[in-house]
Amino acid sequence: MNAHLRMVGFDGDDTLWRSEDYYREAQHAFERIVSGYVDLDDVHDRLYEVERRNIALFGYGVKGMTLSMIETAVAITDARISAADLRHIVDIGKSLLQHPVELLPGIREAVAEIARIHPVVLITKGDLFHQEAKVRESGLADLFRRIEIVSEKDEATYARLFAEFGLAPAEFAMIGNSLRSDIVPVLRLGGSGVHMPYPLTWAHEAQAELPAERTRMRSVTCAAELPAALRSL
Amino acid sequence: MNAHLRMVGFDGDDTLWRSEDYYREAQHAFERIVSGYVDLDDVHDRLYEVERRNIALFGYGVKGMTLSMIETAVAITDARISAADLRHIVDIGKSLLQHPVELLPGIREAVAEIARIHPVVLITKGDLFHQEAKVRESGLADLFRRIEIVSEKDEATYARLFAEFGLAPAEFAMIGNSLRSDIVPVLRLGGSGVHMPYPLTWAHEAQAELPAERTRMRSVTCAAELPAALRSL
Repeated sequence: MNAHLRMVGFDGDDTLWRSEDYYREAQHAFERIVSGYVDLDDVHDRLYEVERRNIALFGYGVKGMTLSMIETAVAITDARISAADLRHIVDIGKSLLQHPVELLPGIREAVAEIARIHPVVLITKGDLFHQEAKVRESGLADLFRRIEIVSEKDEATYARLFAEFGLAPAEFAMIGNSLRSDIVPVLRLGGSGVHMPYPLTWAHEAQAELPAERTRMRSVTCAAELPAALRSL
Repeated sequence: MNAHLRMVGFDGDDTLWRSEDYYREAQHAFERIVSGYVDLDDVHDRLYEVERRNIALFGYGVKGMTLSMIETAVAITDARISAADLRHIVDIGKSLLQHPVELLPGIREAVAEIARIHPVVLITKGDLFHQEAKVRESGLADLFRRIEIVSEKDEATYARLFAEFGLAPAEFAMIGNSLRSDIVPVLRLGGSGVHMPYPLTWAHEAQAELPAERTRMRSVTCAAELPAALRSL
C-alpha cells in the first residue's frame, strides 16, 4: 500500500478545472478573424510555430499567446490585417483571462477525500497572476497545504520543490493530465504519478517519453478513481 | 542595534538592477510610433490610464504592458494604425523582455555584506517568467536563501511570507525603491524598512502614504549605505 506517501500534488489546468477548451475556442476565434484575409489550411500550425518559438521569451500563459496571435496574424496577412481586427485579437486574450473556473466532475470530492489522508499541494504552471485568480475562484484553495505556481514543470522544478517540502521523491505522488509536465519528470526523480488524461491536450504537452519502468504510475479515467489509484501505489 | 532582525528582504527591479529606464525607453518608442498618426500631448497619460485599468486583468509585467500599448494605439488612432506598426509595438515588448540585467552600483557588495550577517531573501513582483530570467542573469541568485516572485506586494502578501518563513514581522527588514510596495506594507505589519529611491519611479509605485510613526524606517541614497542603515535599525 501507500504508507510511503507523505504528500500528494495536483496539477491545475485540465486536472482540477477546464482550460484547454477555452484555448481551443480562442484559436477558433483567431482563425475566423484571419480567414477574412487569407485562405490557408495551416493557420493553426503557423500559430503553434510562433507560440513555440516565443515560449523561451514569453513563458506559458494567455498574455504571451495573445502576443503570438498578433504576430502570426500580421505575418500571414502580409500586414494587411486591420487595426480593428488586431484589437479583436487582444479581446480574445482578455476574454480568455476571464473565463469562468469550471471544476471537472467529481474533483472537489476527490481532492477532499485525498486531503483527509495526505497533505495535498497544488503545483501549477503558467502565468502567476492568472493562475492565482483561477485558484481563488476555484474555491479549492483551502484544501491545499501549499500552492506553487511555477514557470516550468520539469525535473529541476520538482527537485527544488521536494527540497523545500523536506520530502524524498519516493514520498511524493503527482496527479495530472499532462504526461510531459505532471508524470514523466516525477517518475524520473523516483516519485509516483497518477495520469488522468483530459479529452483535449495542447500539442506541446503531448510530447513526452514515458520511462520503461512504470510500477509507480497509474492511469485513471475520472476523478472518482483517484483515491483508489493512490492507495494502489 | 539590530539584534532583533532575523531576515532581510530585497526588492528586485530598480533596487538590485535597472528596470524603469527600459520601460521609459519603451514608452518613448511607443510614442514615436503613434506620433506618426496623431498629434497629442497626452499619449503617455492615455497609455497609463489603459494600463491602470488592465492591471486587474493582466497583473504587472511587460506582456500586459505590451497588450495595453496595442489597445491604446488602436484607440487613439481611431484604428488607423497599420498592422506593421502594431507589430513594431510587439517588438518593443520583446526587446524589453531581453534587456540586459545591469546591477546598480555597489549592490553586489552590499547584498554580500548583509548576507554574511542575516539570511537574505529576494521578494520581487511581476511576471514569473521574466523575473526568473532576470534573477538568473543577475548572478546574485546564490546569495539569496529564497526567491519569492509574487503578483502583488501588499500587507497580505508579506503576512503570508512571514508565516512561511516562520518570522514575526519585527524580525524582518525590507530594502527597496518603492514606498508603496517595499516599505509601507512592511512598516504597517510591524517590520522595518530601508528605502533606497531610484531616480525614476513609475507613477503607480509613487502612490503611497507613509505611516506617521517611522522609527523603524531608514532612507539611503546608494547601496553602500545599506549595511549601516540596517545596523542602525
